Amino acid sequence: MSLFPPIEPPDHEAAAAARARQRQLTKPPGSLGRLEELSAWVAACQGRCPPRQFDRARVVVFAGDHGVAGAGVSAYPAEVTAQMVANFDAGGAAINVLADLAGAGVRVVDIAVDTDTPLSPAIGAYKVRRGSGNIAVEDALSDEEVHAALEAGRRIADEEVDTGADLLIAGDMGIGNTTPATTLVAALTNIEPVALIGRGTGVDDAGWARKTAAVRDALYRTRHDRSDPVALLRICGGADLAAMAGFCAQAAVRRTPLLLDGLVTTAAALVAERLAPGARQWWQAAHRSTEPAHQAALEQLELQPLFDLGLRLGEGTGAAVALPLVRAAVAVLTSMATFAEAGISTGTDGVPDGP
Amino acid sequence: MSLFPPIEPPDHEAAAAARARQRQLTKPPGSLGRLEELSAWVAACQGRCPPRQFDRARVVVFAGDHGVAGAGVSAYPAEVTAQMVANFDAGGAAINVLADLAGAGVRVVDIAVDTDTPLSPAIGAYKVRRGSGNIAVEDALSDEEVHAALEAGRRIADEEVDTGADLLIAGDMGIGNTTPATTLVAALTNIEPVALIGRGTGVDDAGWARKTAAVRDALYRTRHDRSDPVALLRICGGADLAAMAGFCAQAAVRRTPLLLDGLVTTAAALVAERLAPGARQWWQAAHRSTEPAHQAALEQLELQPLFDLGLRLGEGTGAAVALPLVRAAVAVLTSMATFAEAGISTGTDGVPDGP
Repeated sequence: MSLFPPIEPPDHEAAAAARARQRQLTKPPGSLGRLEELSAWVAACQGRCPPRQFDRARVVVFAGDHGVAGAGVSAYPAEVTAQMVANFDAGGAAINVLADLAGAGVRVVDIAVDTDTPLSPAIGAYKVRRGSGNIAVEDALSDEEVHAALEAGRRIADEEVDTGADLLIAGDMGIGNTTPATTLVAALTNIEPVALIGRGTGVDDAGWARKTAAVRDALYRTRHDRSDPVALLRICGGADLAAMAGFCAQAAVRRTPLLLDGLVTTAAALVAERLAPGARQWWQAAHRSTEPAHQAALEQLELQPLFDLGLRLGEGTGAAVALPLVRAAVAVLTSMATFAEAGISTGTDGVPDGP
Repeated sequence: MSLFPPIEPPDHEAAAAARARQRQLTKPPGSLGRLEELSAWVAACQGRCPPRQFDRARVVVFAGDHGVAGAGVSAYPAEVTAQMVANFDAGGAAINVLADLAGAGVRVVDIAVDTDTPLSPAIGAYKVRRGSGNIAVEDALSDEEVHAALEAGRRIADEEVDTGADLLIAGDMGIGNTTPATTLVAALTNIEPVALIGRGTGVDDAGWARKTAAVRDALYRTRHDRSDPVALLRICGGADLAAMAGFCAQAAVRRTPLLLDGLVTTAAALVAERLAPGARQWWQAAHRSTEPAHQAALEQLELQPLFDLGLRLGEGTGAAVALPLVRAAVAVLTSMATFAEAGISTGTDGVPDGP
């Protein structure tokens, strides 16, 4: 049984054309460093060189509660998840401000917020359940719920791509969600939990100890299922995480580049790479957060973050901050003059003569 | 004799107000990491909280040739400097594309390009001389030329601020300019040249050896003048570097925030900090380039770059790429909802209740 079709790689020829064009632009070859490789990646994803600047970048924030929040693993009460969904809807959250500045739209989806009634029918269209189970003591989801959540993420990605999205960003909101995310990373990397567990959005020492206990307990229950991503989502994930995994995998199926944000989206992406091997070729890591598990997940995905500014908010904020850097890479490849156009004398290799 | 008036620090009260406001915004305190400190810096520079988004960010590219280029220290011939000035004027260079994307204007000034006739009267309005001397064997400038170039940079900063610039970026263009810049850093940090000398825009091994010899020879001639920034600009600097130093210092005099780019502008800033102690409080380091001397200069200035993407182009490009990050910091502080506005329940400390 395979939930996703085989992932095709981005277009190597377009990437090669991008690298060749970079050598013709009026700057020393390689002098824009990582931006040059990033431009080749965008060209490869779009299958054309020069690539188009992004017209319709879209952030999808997956909101969900987690029973483990009741175990005191977070600095915040679970009610904040629903309050923040309203804040996203009203445009007052960090992701609204940062996405607006970066020219991206924001959509929030209630996958498993712990309320009976979603904020609106549109926001609740893919709701799977009220909160996910407390992974310290029980499965987060049933198998059916895992599949419903994966399908929700897949359909949300399809909707976005079908309405013109040319760049996707996965964001997260959910009090307590770094606990299941860290457990997933521990299960998929075989790294000791204590080396992975961070402060989330700011838990104190006692809360950190409760978080560590919860991760250990949940991880123990995964011991026979480490190679089964669906089972991991059931045992120690959550509906929001499963939906994000489906979303990240489907972005790759739809040949649409995607920016990962922090620990929670990257943990979901780690699962998505197991569900749809090769999907990671369609993703970039925006930043390195302060969560140790984030770095471990990035290493396993072989993704190099663009910056490290000590962010630990989630919501897709780090990816929104990174979007202008990706736009800059595209703009250089698209809009700079070549040596020939600028009338700068070059040797036969297309770069200026040496002294 | 002091060339610049005493530098006043940015407004500590506005910075404190910014930090207090960050704690009221709908996110965990500190969760936007470095962006929060950056927003406080902008508030302090503007003397108001929340700060205004930048309306008129301006890149000034200081172009100049260096006699030492004739010694084979660069991968490019000196003619490229003048050709690139024309490319800037035509809008085809990397800095044009990146500044445009970031909402900044670009101005190029010919301070010491090795041509008799500047590209236009406006571009040549502050021209000091045709090229600077070959620092491997002679002084770069006379004392009069150092003062003329410092004054040029000062007047250019004044013109920009007087016409409404609220953020300045210093950029550089000049074949061979990393050789004097590295020499200045070596003279001001007392670090062995061999630990500082990089590949510039891409010199080969033989060129690197010539560059090292040139830096050592120039540095030797500074041995009695290490504490005199004007003498250093004369012996081992250049008219473009002196103008950039005057520009960076005057930005601080005019209480205008400034983003540094790579090695060349940061070397000039290191001199400016000696000319106008405290000026560095008005600057941020955009990025860390691949040049070892850049890192040494940043450390001495106690500036922490925002990212490291392996850039080594100059022109102000790294700073233009960083500008959206600074804008993001401002936007968060200016536009996010507070907990009170969003109706999210908080304790008496203004942050949400813990579990």
